[in-house]
Amino acid sequence: MIVVMKAGCSQDDIGAVVNRIKKLGLKEHISQGVERTIIGVLGQNLLDFQDTLQLLPGVEEIIPVSKPYKLASREFHPRNTVVRVNGVAIGGDEIVIMAGPCAIESEKQLLDTARQVKADGANILRGGAFKPSTSPYHFRGLGKKGLEMLAKTREATGMPVITEVMTPNDVELVANYVDILQIGARNMQNFILLDEVGKTRKPVMLKRGLSSTIQEWLLAAEYILAQGNEQLILCERGIRTFETSTRNTMDISAIPIIKKVSHLPIIADPSHATGKWYLVAPLALAAIAAGADGLMIEVHPNPALALKDGAQSLTFESFRQFVSQAIPIAQATGRKLATSGTKVKS
Amino acid sequence: MIVVMKAGCSQDDIGAVVNRIKKLGLKEHISQGVERTIIGVLGQNLLDFQDTLQLLPGVEEIIPVSKPYKLASREFHPRNTVVRVNGVAIGGDEIVIMAGPCAIESEKQLLDTARQVKADGANILRGGAFKPSTSPYHFRGLGKKGLEMLAKTREATGMPVITEVMTPNDVELVANYVDILQIGARNMQNFILLDEVGKTRKPVMLKRGLSSTIQEWLLAAEYILAQGNEQLILCERGIRTFETSTRNTMDISAIPIIKKVSHLPIIADPSHATGKWYLVAPLALAAIAAGADGLMIEVHPNPALALKDGAQSLTFESFRQFVSQAIPIAQATGRKLATSGTKVKS
Amino acid sequence: MIVVMKAGCSQDDIGAVVNRIKKLGLKEHISQGVERTIIGVLGQNLLDFQDTLQLLPGVEEIIPVSKPYKLASREFHPRNTVVRVNGVAIGGDEIVIMAGPCAIESEKQLLDTARQVKADGANILRGGAFKPSTSPYHFRGLGKKGLEMLAKTREATGMPVITEVMTPNDVELVANYVDILQIGARNMQNFILLDEVGKTRKPVMLKRGLSSTIQEWLLAAEYILAQGNEQLILCERGIRTFETSTRNTMDISAIPIIKKVSHLPIIADPSHATGKWYLVAPLALAAIAAGADGLMIEVHPNPALALKDGAQSLTFESFRQFVSQAIPIAQATGRKLATSGTKVKS
Amino acid sequence: MIVVMKAGCSQDDIGAVVNRIKKLGLKEHISQGVERTIIGVLGQNLLDFQDTLQLLPGVEEIIPVSKPYKLASREFHPRNTVVRVNGVAIGGDEIVIMAGPCAIESEKQLLDTARQVKADGANILRGGAFKPSTSPYHFRGLGKKGLEMLAKTREATGMPVITEVMTPNDVELVANYVDILQIGARNMQNFILLDEVGKTRKPVMLKRGLSSTIQEWLLAAEYILAQGNEQLILCERGIRTFETSTRNTMDISAIPIIKKVSHLPIIADPSHATGKWYLVAPLALAAIAAGADGLMIEVHPNPALALKDGAQSLTFESFRQFVSQAIPIAQATGRKLATSGTKVKS
Repeated sequence: MIVVMKAGCSQDDIGAVVNRIKKLGLKEHISQGVERTIIGVLGQNLLDFQDTLQLLPGVEEIIPVSKPYKLASREFHPRNTVVRVNGVAIGGDEIVIMAGPCAIESEKQLLDTARQVKADGANILRGGAFKPSTSPYHFRGLGKKGLEMLAKTREATGMPVITEVMTPNDVELVANYVDILQIGARNMQNFILLDEVGKTRKPVMLKRGLSSTIQEWLLAAEYILAQGNEQLILCERGIRTFETSTRNTMDISAIPIIKKVSHLPIIADPSHATGKWYLVAPLALAAIAAGADGLMIEVHPNPALALKDGAQSLTFESFRQFVSQAIPIAQATGRKLATSGTKVKS
Repeated sequence: MIVVMKAGCSQDDIGAVVNRIKKLGLKEHISQGVERTIIGVLGQNLLDFQDTLQLLPGVEEIIPVSKPYKLASREFHPRNTVVRVNGVAIGGDEIVIMAGPCAIESEKQLLDTARQVKADGANILRGGAFKPSTSPYHFRGLGKKGLEMLAKTREATGMPVITEVMTPNDVELVANYVDILQIGARNMQNFILLDEVGKTRKPVMLKRGLSSTIQEWLLAAEYILAQGNEQLILCERGIRTFETSTRNTMDISAIPIIKKVSHLPIIADPSHATGKWYLVAPLALAAIAAGADGLMIEVHPNPALALKDGAQSLTFESFRQFVSQAIPIAQATGRKLATSGTKVKS
Repeated sequence: MIVVMKAGCSQDDIGAVVNRIKKLGLKEHISQGVERTIIGVLGQNLLDFQDTLQLLPGVEEIIPVSKPYKLASREFHPRNTVVRVNGVAIGGDEIVIMAGPCAIESEKQLLDTARQVKADGANILRGGAFKPSTSPYHFRGLGKKGLEMLAKTREATGMPVITEVMTPNDVELVANYVDILQIGARNMQNFILLDEVGKTRKPVMLKRGLSSTIQEWLLAAEYILAQGNEQLILCERGIRTFETSTRNTMDISAIPIIKKVSHLPIIADPSHATGKWYLVAPLALAAIAAGADGLMIEVHPNPALALKDGAQSLTFESFRQFVSQAIPIAQATGRKLATSGTKVKS
Repeated sequence: MIVVMKAGCSQDDIGAVVNRIKKLGLKEHISQGVERTIIGVLGQNLLDFQDTLQLLPGVEEIIPVSKPYKLASREFHPRNTVVRVNGVAIGGDEIVIMAGPCAIESEKQLLDTARQVKADGANILRGGAFKPSTSPYHFRGLGKKGLEMLAKTREATGMPVITEVMTPNDVELVANYVDILQIGARNMQNFILLDEVGKTRKPVMLKRGLSSTIQEWLLAAEYILAQGNEQLILCERGIRTFETSTRNTMDISAIPIIKKVSHLPIIADPSHATGKWYLVAPLALAAIAAGADGLMIEVHPNPALALKDGAQSLTFESFRQFVSQAIPIAQATGRKLATSGTKVKS
């Protein structure tokens, strides 16, 4: 952290800042320029003090230098984290596809979808049992029954499964049924939920919040890592902007940025990012080209009858077609689609 | 809801849409224009089906007509809701001031602040016991100890108290100690928490999410109202935009809009909206002029030593000065500052 | 500007940065910390070099310290600028109201409106002759004819007039007819137009761009000031955000921020900020409470027949009512509405 | 356009709306539902009347149905537009690369860069002669001298050239020197400039505004098309959002959306979208995967010495490396890099 003093500040002002820094258990480093004095503050995790140092007389500005996250940073952990789930490796050389319905509606719907997406190249099955809904009057998921259907389908197909957990109390329950705990975008800063999934030893997928910066996202990841759970995957799913022709704006640059500053795997969810099925394939291909480690894609046997998010769901046919496009793109980037859990050879 | 069909669609397309509408238990109303056919859908809470109707062949666009919230709307409930807390009425003729430290740090800090803000015109004491923090390494509040300090201070001063509850499990605990349960911006769409505070009969203050539209905010309010809790206050606290010179951008227009479309009281929090103490007074005065029912303002005995958000806290002196400016502004709008709970006469 | 070097950088890296700084004609100031070296760069207007210094080996980050604008800053020019137009002072103690139709439609429409708003408290007449329009098929203004009507109406009423100039070629023409040249939001970074109005000695009102930060706005102001034209007024008119219930989001905090960092007068345009006539009065009152030096308000004899922006125009009746609310708010802030050019006594 | 009437509106209200519609020369189509009446308005280019219809008594809401642009729409012009420039086809099967320095600095810099990027696969040379600059104190380009250097370099290398024109007065001048006229993001709604380039018969590249919706962008395109110039290329270059780790946020979904709703070619500019050289290649590859017709990429012989935007410029080496990655990605999408104007075979 750097404290920039005002041009005409007094020695007393400087002294007061130095005293405050020392009281915080930190070390100062004064650099007296011709125009103004700059005070470096040595130590860590200072974000909270930034605000208050700023109020001392003679202080012009406080400038943070080091990143506020540590465990999530590549500096701290130079090698890529690879999350392994029943033989599927996320964050390694291969690109993983998670697919399935937005919401679980019935055993048949889930099993049919699972079998089909597996046959066509999906490695992991997604399906919502607890569904966040903007309105209290809409479908909020089958709950525990949905979890049971997930477990049954996993048994029938051998596919690992991922589902969202919405509240701390459900973490243990959900963890008993599924392979990956998903934290939804609206819960990215539900800090107590982050603590709770951090205490499990289950893999977690943390979606980016609708209006979260990349730094805030990595700080949310830091919550989970700080509890000792290192099996963490990030998921870009679009941010909120002024543009209304898509549900959100997929921040494609988040993919190479995360790759640069963090060691965590990152996947993309073009279904939620766009809200429109016909944009899913082009954005999924773009995500692979930009370096994503995987994709999460909504697939439904009959999107026009889906209880939730039908407009952004691929049909079986359009999913198959998408995979056929994804194979050469993955190869063009020097990687390939993962084959574990699927029936096709990439 | 209106289904706009494509210009050249077939009678079969129209028939399929009508069938789907009937299957959903709704009624259709066809209007055959020269250029295109428009199908009105009569019934309620249709948001979820919008997506899937859109996928039927021949459909150009789905346009929602009615507002998706009901209990929160002024149409449904024409008269202003007034929330009463120990003699303080929020949403009535008088403008209410909630003031106090961002985070409770000690009994003395809280009591000193309470006595001072009461003496200077505050009606309700705020103070955080459970604090959401972007980083896991920063101060997260005193927890239950903080709640006890709040209860003690209430006893000592007679001021009603408000504090944030962050997770469903804490609702009962927090409700035992305080008069108003606050739902923070990051939890505006923590739907299970909304259900939970909705089940209590405690007044609730629901802050607008950082990137929530006014409609989404009222749908979050609907969750609480739908559980039978009508003691609900809204709080505008700034939205996230591209501008970086303030922490958030206070959406001042939200105040008259809420007044128009809803019956719920609305207050403003200029401390969190701006993040800078010197902007608090002008924005608080602006909120009163725009019709706010109250204000939430952070005050600290010594902001430069605050454990959290010192940069946006008023000193005792600047709070007193602010109140002296607020009195004539309130009068100019034909209202006045509330005097219940305070020692000053407005 | 501060150059933060990477933790493990070499002496050669530091040497190369120092050489580059010297080549730019600037002075360096090295501060060797325990963890990392920080190099201060002394000199001015360095924004352009920030990018390139950043690319040198061993450089972690470049941090600008001084503000990039100078003539617009309060540091450089501590006293408020007051712009005087035919007896109306903008930026002084009194609050100025500019009112009139969005677009000039006819001599009668303009004159009727001018007479009425003058009778009810407006000091300056607004009216668009050249209208920016999102679509090429919509009304783009009466052009030169509109300017002539403005001049005539000024003669008939004695009111100073303001109108938008959209392109450098029209600056001379428009300047011949009106008292204040308005630069619209979409042209805030039309740099050649800024140069051009800067070369005149006519007062200029510079609207904030839809997605411009306050700093970019002041840099646009700097263009005009740098050409020697100091008769400059700023106008906040809403920024683009994700919220769709208003046309734009009025950034009310821009008013006290501009007052703090700049000496230029600032007024607010709640008509364009909200796009809805029933939000104009509350936001205009809020702007006064927040410290605005004036307001620009659209008024039309019959908004439902307006050729442009009828939905955001006040009727004569609602304008009169607004002024009656504004008078006590202005007084409550220790100021009053200007009376020059109007027929009413504030 | 659809006029939704309020639930309890009178027959007089409906009559008044119908009268107004007829006065506008349009036809109405009434559809009397059980709950409310809906009035369809038949005709075109109605955007401007939306506002005013909304003000009539009994009107709940106005809903536009048809798109406000016509010439730019795929409905109107189903086949892809292909813009041809000296043997390079933009919008056809092949993907075109425009490369070169942000700003022209010298004859040598431009020629060296041109020769190198041509050798490595670029089809068109970019180079700024007139440079928009946020600050008046920074480099604003070499102006006419820069144009002359462009023309010379074109002669020496045979590459077509593109450069920005910033103001109507320069259109003729710039058109005399270059092959494609570029309209920068800040000028996307400089309507008079759009008119002016629309009147030429030179190819135009229209960049998306920083905060422009896709619809506004297509309406800006409509200005140019309406003047009879159909040689138009669109360029996505990032939009402004709350995220600060990139200069802008590249809206990758704009590419498939434009392809769906318009016939115009679309290219991507990852240099301006991100502001960071190390993000240029991944985003450029993503743009190809998403279906872009081309790329505009900044390349500089020595970015650390560039007068403008060095931080986002590729070196010769990194450009060559990027092209080698782009070749297989283009092939994976079933297209290939254009070879006209280059020395390499894709």
